[in-house]
Amino acid sequence: MTYFTKIVDVITEYYQVPLAEPLGDATHGIHTHFELPVVKIKLEDGYEGVGYTYTGGVGGRAICAMIEHDLRPFLIGRDASCVEKIWEEMNWHIHYVGRGGIASFAISAVDIALWDIRAKRAGMPLYKLLGGHSDSTNCYAGAIDLNFTKERLLENIKSYLSQGFTAVKIKLGQPTLAEDIDRVAAVRELIGPNIDFMVDANMKWSVEKAIKATKELAKYNLLWLEEPTIPDDYEGYKRISREGELAIAAGENLHTVYEFQNMIARGKIDFPQPDASNIGGITGWLKVANLAYAHNLPVCTHGMQELHVSLMAAIPHASYMEVHSFPIDQYTTRPLVMKDGRAVAPDIAGTGVEFNWELLKDYRRTF
Amino acid sequence: MTYFTKIVDVITEYYQVPLAEPLGDATHGIHTHFELPVVKIKLEDGYEGVGYTYTGGVGGRAICAMIEHDLRPFLIGRDASCVEKIWEEMNWHIHYVGRGGIASFAISAVDIALWDIRAKRAGMPLYKLLGGHSDSTNCYAGAIDLNFTKERLLENIKSYLSQGFTAVKIKLGQPTLAEDIDRVAAVRELIGPNIDFMVDANMKWSVEKAIKATKELAKYNLLWLEEPTIPDDYEGYKRISREGELAIAAGENLHTVYEFQNMIARGKIDFPQPDASNIGGITGWLKVANLAYAHNLPVCTHGMQELHVSLMAAIPHASYMEVHSFPIDQYTTRPLVMKDGRAVAPDIAGTGVEFNWELLKDYRRTF
Repeated sequence: MTYFTKIVDVITEYYQVPLAEPLGDATHGIHTHFELPVVKIKLEDGYEGVGYTYTGGVGGRAICAMIEHDLRPFLIGRDASCVEKIWEEMNWHIHYVGRGGIASFAISAVDIALWDIRAKRAGMPLYKLLGGHSDSTNCYAGAIDLNFTKERLLENIKSYLSQGFTAVKIKLGQPTLAEDIDRVAAVRELIGPNIDFMVDANMKWSVEKAIKATKELAKYNLLWLEEPTIPDDYEGYKRISREGELAIAAGENLHTVYEFQNMIARGKIDFPQPDASNIGGITGWLKVANLAYAHNLPVCTHGMQELHVSLMAAIPHASYMEVHSFPIDQYTTRPLVMKDGRAVAPDIAGTGVEFNWELLKDYRRTF
Repeated sequence: MTYFTKIVDVITEYYQVPLAEPLGDATHGIHTHFELPVVKIKLEDGYEGVGYTYTGGVGGRAICAMIEHDLRPFLIGRDASCVEKIWEEMNWHIHYVGRGGIASFAISAVDIALWDIRAKRAGMPLYKLLGGHSDSTNCYAGAIDLNFTKERLLENIKSYLSQGFTAVKIKLGQPTLAEDIDRVAAVRELIGPNIDFMVDANMKWSVEKAIKATKELAKYNLLWLEEPTIPDDYEGYKRISREGELAIAAGENLHTVYEFQNMIARGKIDFPQPDASNIGGITGWLKVANLAYAHNLPVCTHGMQELHVSLMAAIPHASYMEVHSFPIDQYTTRPLVMKDGRAVAPDIAGTGVEFNWELLKDYRRTF
């Protein structure tokens, strides 16, 4: 077989994109911008794929350095069609400094570019290449609003409802649980009983505090409590789930398939939330989605809605896609499209994520 | 309290140091050089500390990028005395792109520099600052010799014995188990019954193959089998330990305290091998050493013997320090000192690791 789609170049670019207003959560403090490492993979036959990852402001240059110095030399000359082989071998190539962290972000960006090529070459939109269970997905607006006053918080939620969202999430982790409860009560009163409502503690709490919090939060009919404590504490998640009174979500800080396996099989989560930007791209995301399927769990996502919409549309067990407060989609040629409260997958060949370079050019930085 | 030792600069340097001959293992292939990221931390009062980490050839520039762009701005202006506070806050500062991988290496280098300052300021050698249980430690020669012919393998082991080593380790993972057994038998015959002998599979095997291998290897009286399979498979380690017939060692690929906790409490290892270059420096290493103590386990190490000698000398439950085939110590002013088969800790204020910059200068590269 002489079928061979040779990689001839891998170009890495680094962007720092400012946010419209400062956004805060319980452990990462205030975000003023997000980082956007971009990878362009060029093939000998003229095909080009674009991949990317993002961070809340830290690590972007290390991600770019790994792509440029460790992955680029590894990739050039390889067959871009062999996405599964490249994914496995990239993981082993950087294994000693890898298994999560920067390596997972770097591999994700490369893998997404390879899938972009795969779908372009097939002449298919990504959601169809993946099997197209649907062409859209349920979604919710995920706010990073811990630093908002209660008035600003409610105003923000109102704006989500006016945009057509039928589900919303807010941040918890105020100095006292009473303050958190007060904000949850105000939001539930605002949105009424029929809007799905989630909360996110961003790992701020001890296991004991999380269990106590779920008991006070339960009466507000919350769909899930996200990341009540650190992602390493599998036993802790199991206790929060068994002794608490809310369903539990987590995933943005589980950066290997094995971390999801441990959290599902040894810990406990009800809503796994893999993020293709840090779980190893589309290849890694699909492995987690299949793991969740085998455990009778639905799949949610974190961040990068402009890409996740195609993944969530494709699978039968999608729950809710997050529409994240980092508006990467606003810097593409097709900002998120919603219809009847659902997010609609792009219908062009490739991942459908085509950056508007004109909008981004002022934010490019050296790395 | 006005005691405040202000950090005024953090300088990162990157070296690629060639090895005298190509060295191979079962998963990382052939090593031709090692990477040496170095951090120099300068205080307002004139004190300076030197820290470092190392890799087998991949990821060094990403480590340097994280120190330069993410940790340096975080560190400048802080009180260098607050090593525990800085360690905890560094981990949270990079948490979203961290928890293992590049972040653990970057934090390790910074933490070692802070301990160097701490010991220099105290006017004490590191092993005494840490409590000085002894001034030396048992050690073994760890070869990276999977690519050696059997003749070269035996010649290399002879050279270790002539240098005074009383314990040696070789690599396993040849194409067939029979070849591995043949090499183990030849080495045991060469060294006789009284030299401690360890083997290292570098994660090459499945759980089933590892269990089978231990049954064939057991008659050669091996002290441990190292990294039989991937470090993420805690259940697999438990099975290998329960169903196999050798003691198990692992640690160079456990890059957070939580990974050690999971491996000890849920998996199973007999010889934890934390490496201060990738477990979060001396602060991280001590947390793992204390975890091991509480589980009635001895502590071993991986790599960077020039630093680990002081840590191992200090603690009551030290087993064997590895004298690794990456000869970082040869680029310091005091290459490893051995007496009666034991490695002796340096007796000067600081970590005792003072690089010979003249020897290194030709290997410096941009990052």
